Amino acid sequence: MALFSQITIIGMGLIGSSIARAVKKTGVTGRLVACDNNEEHCQISRDLKLADHITADPQEAARGSDLVILATPVGTYGDLGKIICPEMQSGAILTDVGSVKGSVVKALSPLMRADCHLIPGHPVAGTEQSGPDAGFAALFEGRWCIVTPLENTPDDMVDKLEKFWQALGSKVELMTPDHHDMVLAITSHLPHLIAYNIVGTARHLEEVTKSEVIKYSAGGFRDFTRIAASDPTMWRDVFLHNKEAVLEMLGRFSEDLTALQRAIRYDEGDKLFKLFDRTRRIRKEIIDAGQEQDIADFGRHKDDQ
Amino acid sequence: MALFSQITIIGMGLIGSSIARAVKKTGVTGRLVACDNNEEHCQISRDLKLADHITADPQEAARGSDLVILATPVGTYGDLGKIICPEMQSGAILTDVGSVKGSVVKALSPLMRADCHLIPGHPVAGTEQSGPDAGFAALFEGRWCIVTPLENTPDDMVDKLEKFWQALGSKVELMTPDHHDMVLAITSHLPHLIAYNIVGTARHLEEVTKSEVIKYSAGGFRDFTRIAASDPTMWRDVFLHNKEAVLEMLGRFSEDLTALQRAIRYDEGDKLFKLFDRTRRIRKEIIDAGQEQDIADFGRHKDDQ
Repeated sequence: MALFSQITIIGMGLIGSSIARAVKKTGVTGRLVACDNNEEHCQISRDLKLADHITADPQEAARGSDLVILATPVGTYGDLGKIICPEMQSGAILTDVGSVKGSVVKALSPLMRADCHLIPGHPVAGTEQSGPDAGFAALFEGRWCIVTPLENTPDDMVDKLEKFWQALGSKVELMTPDHHDMVLAITSHLPHLIAYNIVGTARHLEEVTKSEVIKYSAGGFRDFTRIAASDPTMWRDVFLHNKEAVLEMLGRFSEDLTALQRAIRYDEGDKLFKLFDRTRRIRKEIIDAGQEQDIADFGRHKDDQ
Repeated sequence: MALFSQITIIGMGLIGSSIARAVKKTGVTGRLVACDNNEEHCQISRDLKLADHITADPQEAARGSDLVILATPVGTYGDLGKIICPEMQSGAILTDVGSVKGSVVKALSPLMRADCHLIPGHPVAGTEQSGPDAGFAALFEGRWCIVTPLENTPDDMVDKLEKFWQALGSKVELMTPDHHDMVLAITSHLPHLIAYNIVGTARHLEEVTKSEVIKYSAGGFRDFTRIAASDPTMWRDVFLHNKEAVLEMLGRFSEDLTALQRAIRYDEGDKLFKLFDRTRRIRKEIIDAGQEQDIADFGRHKDDQ
């Protein structure tokens, strides 16, 4: 028995197209509809047979589905909601995969009909690549998906969405939208902001040429360029829609960085060593938790001792 | 014909032991001597047969070699130089693999005998792992090694050291010690400092638990933990010995970050998009230059579309 009779995915980028691939494998739905406003994305999705029906019209896409998933940049949700909500089937769930949750609730809940259910979600998974050809079915396997139900959401609807993500291989955790936004500010948004920033700083140096930055990037810089290669529209929206939590975390980061700067200036080697020694341990815990692989240098070399 | 009749490596950590492995493969020397003040490292090196002779005594190790390589934290060079320099064979080269170069010249050149040659070097390669069992012969393949000869160093000695690194698979570039320190401050030292700092900031939050940081680290944070897992002693020494250039780059980074913070606060989406779009391109150039592999998410998943 399929969990849903028809699922609609709006936005066939990395995440949307990965959901489509995973859905096809699991049989959680009778029929899969995909939608993208970019004609090229639609064509690629058709060529790869990623859904049963593929259209550029979100109204048409949303009709008749009991699960509609928004997988576009969060800045588009308000406009999309206005178009989609009146078309949705009674009893249907509207969810999303956006990296912020508080602003999603603010944008969409006023637009929801009383007979539909808004249950925001966020699969914490991704790569630096974009577009329908970058997706893959295993993207969500072993990763966490955070679901942030509203106070009045019926439990059986939340259960259904949980089962959906579990079918795709994810582990599901429930939390409030505000707590989600604080957790992701430190684990994802701040790391991206800092990565974008250091790559920007490197571009503007007069003393060091761009070709030198590229040549010697194996010393650490290249690791930052991976996440600084993420989709710019998506990330602009993330920072503008999680402003408070990002500014809070950024304030703490800058305070700590100033303290570190001072320790370097005044030769406080013990302070530096203590910090560097402690941070080393957290990586081991991340590896132990199955959220990272213990392959030196991210497996960039082959071990040929 | 071997390039050197006997090579000594002092310090059998990740870099020293990788050099030993690579040297054994290439036959650039008649005999290889290894030295480490940690008895456990000596024993592992003996078990792995990483050199022809392994000792904890640097004086004994340096005798009779025409190339001596320091591969210990840069803070140890002054003391080591005092012990080694009087024992070195006439005409021998003293080099190193340290991540800073100006302070190495300051520490070692007053100790050098007139009949020996100090030629500092820095292979820009490494992983987050440490110790003699973490090394591997291919570490230097396709990576750059920066050599920073002094003004009075004979060309034929520089040539010999260049040939050594080329035999290990590296590409060699010559520059001044000061320019090296500026280039590495942005491509390596600042990235490490920022990675250590954000991991430190995450540890001190009250609103987000450590277990949440670990669970959701796939959103970006885990990438920073890799370089924040690097050897704490080595990195303490790097920051204290390249203080000026690190503080200069850190100042620029903080200025840029403040501008980014302001753009978020005042909803300047266009500014954010422009920066994020530009930084994306530099990754492509790093991949094109062969300094990174274009595998999504550092090859952490298997592609199973």
